[in-house]
Amino acid sequence: MSATAPAHPLTDEGAARAFLADFRSLSGIGATPGGGVDRQAGTVADGQARHWFRGLVEGHGFDVRYDRVGNQFALLELVPGAPYIAVGSHLDSQPLGGRFDGAYGVLAAAHAGIRLAARPAERSVDQTKAHEAGADDAGAAAGAPRFNIAVVNWFNEEGCRFKPSMMGSSVFTGKLTAEQALATADPRGVTVREALAAIGTVGDFSLDVAAYVEIHIEQGRSLEDDGLAIGLVESTWGANKYEFVVHGEQAHTGATLIADRSDALLGASALVVAAREVADRFTDDEHMVITSCGEFTVFPNSPVVVASRVNLLVDVRSTDPDVLAAADAELHRRIADIERSAGVRIERGAEHNWASKAYDAAGMRLAADAADALGLGHGVVRTLAGHDSTNLKDIVPTIMLFVPSVEGISHNEKELTRDGDMLAGVDLLTELLGRVINGEFVRS
Amino acid sequence: MSATAPAHPLTDEGAARAFLADFRSLSGIGATPGGGVDRQAGTVADGQARHWFRGLVEGHGFDVRYDRVGNQFALLELVPGAPYIAVGSHLDSQPLGGRFDGAYGVLAAAHAGIRLAARPAERSVDQTKAHEAGADDAGAAAGAPRFNIAVVNWFNEEGCRFKPSMMGSSVFTGKLTAEQALATADPRGVTVREALAAIGTVGDFSLDVAAYVEIHIEQGRSLEDDGLAIGLVESTWGANKYEFVVHGEQAHTGATLIADRSDALLGASALVVAAREVADRFTDDEHMVITSCGEFTVFPNSPVVVASRVNLLVDVRSTDPDVLAAADAELHRRIADIERSAGVRIERGAEHNWASKAYDAAGMRLAADAADALGLGHGVVRTLAGHDSTNLKDIVPTIMLFVPSVEGISHNEKELTRDGDMLAGVDLLTELLGRVINGEFVRS
Repeated sequence: MSATAPAHPLTDEGAARAFLADFRSLSGIGATPGGGVDRQAGTVADGQARHWFRGLVEGHGFDVRYDRVGNQFALLELVPGAPYIAVGSHLDSQPLGGRFDGAYGVLAAAHAGIRLAARPAERSVDQTKAHEAGADDAGAAAGAPRFNIAVVNWFNEEGCRFKPSMMGSSVFTGKLTAEQALATADPRGVTVREALAAIGTVGDFSLDVAAYVEIHIEQGRSLEDDGLAIGLVESTWGANKYEFVVHGEQAHTGATLIADRSDALLGASALVVAAREVADRFTDDEHMVITSCGEFTVFPNSPVVVASRVNLLVDVRSTDPDVLAAADAELHRRIADIERSAGVRIERGAEHNWASKAYDAAGMRLAADAADALGLGHGVVRTLAGHDSTNLKDIVPTIMLFVPSVEGISHNEKELTRDGDMLAGVDLLTELLGRVINGEFVRS
Repeated sequence: MSATAPAHPLTDEGAARAFLADFRSLSGIGATPGGGVDRQAGTVADGQARHWFRGLVEGHGFDVRYDRVGNQFALLELVPGAPYIAVGSHLDSQPLGGRFDGAYGVLAAAHAGIRLAARPAERSVDQTKAHEAGADDAGAAAGAPRFNIAVVNWFNEEGCRFKPSMMGSSVFTGKLTAEQALATADPRGVTVREALAAIGTVGDFSLDVAAYVEIHIEQGRSLEDDGLAIGLVESTWGANKYEFVVHGEQAHTGATLIADRSDALLGASALVVAAREVADRFTDDEHMVITSCGEFTVFPNSPVVVASRVNLLVDVRSTDPDVLAAADAELHRRIADIERSAGVRIERGAEHNWASKAYDAAGMRLAADAADALGLGHGVVRTLAGHDSTNLKDIVPTIMLFVPSVEGISHNEKELTRDGDMLAGVDLLTELLGRVINGEFVRS
């Protein structure tokens, strides 16, 4: 289809203004001076965002329910007794996180639901238009819904206060038990159970869903570089994540000779440097390797003490499974070298491995058709980051969409997606979700 | 002199047992499961140790006073109105510190004072013995005291909770104002003023002292390696201490490509590795360079966030001022390289430089004579670590003594000085302090 004005009459200026007003209001919850948000999972600010969200969707006729681990479901029953399509993301954030990551997707899903809820009254208009235009693909969209909508705010996607990340969707998809999640403690010893009880957003609801749709900011720069409005996520990267503990011997920095030291900080620092060297060495024109260390904690971390221990997280990711395996093996060779040269012991603790996995191909085609129908430029992308959809796609047909991030900046107060890009994403999500609930993706 | 039994009759088994019993009792305060202590400055455990110490010395006739920054003075007035000789160390510790560091010196000083306070009654015996032996050097020790004794427990020598280290002795010697010290906050925002008020060990006492003597564990292995009981400290090493801030750009570890990263943790890790390489390169048969990083704090330190900032402390020490300058220049060249290669900015904050400084030569000779009188093997050493005596020596004649540390292990729960070595140190300190208060070091 050629680029045309948005096909749906509700995607008008009023709907756009309503979305942007709600987004600004949401961005004020846990706002930081630098223009970001701090709404770590289970904090007061996370609770405020959850209650704010409840107020929004209840005002539009949704019913709000919580499951045992605080996943928040906003239910819109269009067809009594029909199965549900889930659509959502997460409202929690990193400390000093951006205001778009996750929050955009939850709010876009809610607004798509609100627009679709208002649609039945317009259906006759649509059908008339479609008939007049003789457009084949408008037919299904104009049909009666066969599914209900559950807008989901997954608990603790970020995993900064309580590990692991994607906690709520991991429990929902059976990868983690509710008991494991609830017993997880933050660094101060507060458990998920206690934190959820404190903010009062927990229940015993459960729901089966027939499919899942998520829209999220890209957190990379490929869409912006290519001038595209929409990314159709084809697959996740393969990733190996490790928790390492570097063991040294606590000593006096002033009095202990170099030869007598077993410095855990030196060993851990060498490991961080080695991980970057591995990424540089294994990245070429065909394949990319990315290594990261996002958490690095020194004990006892006193000014005049040689560190006895450093805990650090290292991850290795690649677009190609063979390259990932080779890079991982090289990293482990270098770790053995560091143990010898720095005189430390490096223990490998918990480990998580994700093979590169594809999203549903039919879902990608349906999303491409919907984008074409709205005249939105789109391209195929992969996601380096994990998302709740990474979990959901393993149990139900799942579609994952990206909108552009300015300069790819993310997990940063300066994270930015322009208003026009956000609105295009809401339009597409509305169009796509309308087709999904009408049975164009999965059968009821 | 040849090795003989201790010359002083009070240095008997009863006095030795009393010292070891008190040392065991003191070691129980803030004791850690691994055999060390955690008595960080101004904590409840530090307060307990201070009150315990007050009880001990008051029981032996000392008067206890505190100055504005919590330095604890146990006054023994032997000669009404005469000036004071200070002798002491510190009772505060590192987190998971050893039980000897500082605590040994304070307790040894108290026991030396207790033994000397008991001496007048024995003086006639001593003089008789000295006369019979015809020993010249026993004469002065047997004379009447010309000074009083102040056993001092300096506040916050370790500097782990409140920076800088050697805080109490820095205020006492005019290197830091009392107001600066009292306003210093720990990482939770508690000030020294508040911490001292909470443990109730603060006052408005002030004292001029005529000389200072300190005994401390070596925290190195040279005495043990050389089979010596006593180290006579000749000088401190020269040291440059820097606070660096490595600035990067916060980003998503999963989604941000390597080329788009400015990773503060990578830059800081490269700096730790470079500092060690500088120490290795500039150490040869003649000179030694030691570099250390004892504190390293990552922001925001979340599992999936590329660090925006790392604060770290780096110090460079050498026995030789020219080697120190050359090593320091090389470290700064490498820092400029790291800024370029890691794409970070490295800011140098506060800086402290200490030139290598000598202790009083006459004091070293007096201590050597006293050790000879007791038949204790001794040697000349330098101190890599800072001590309260490092401050005191800049304003009054100062003598610094070391006793051996097993394997040089320090700032570690496994820190150990054997009972025999502790007792030999108390014997020597008693002998030496007796000579000092009799006017053999400074004139009254």
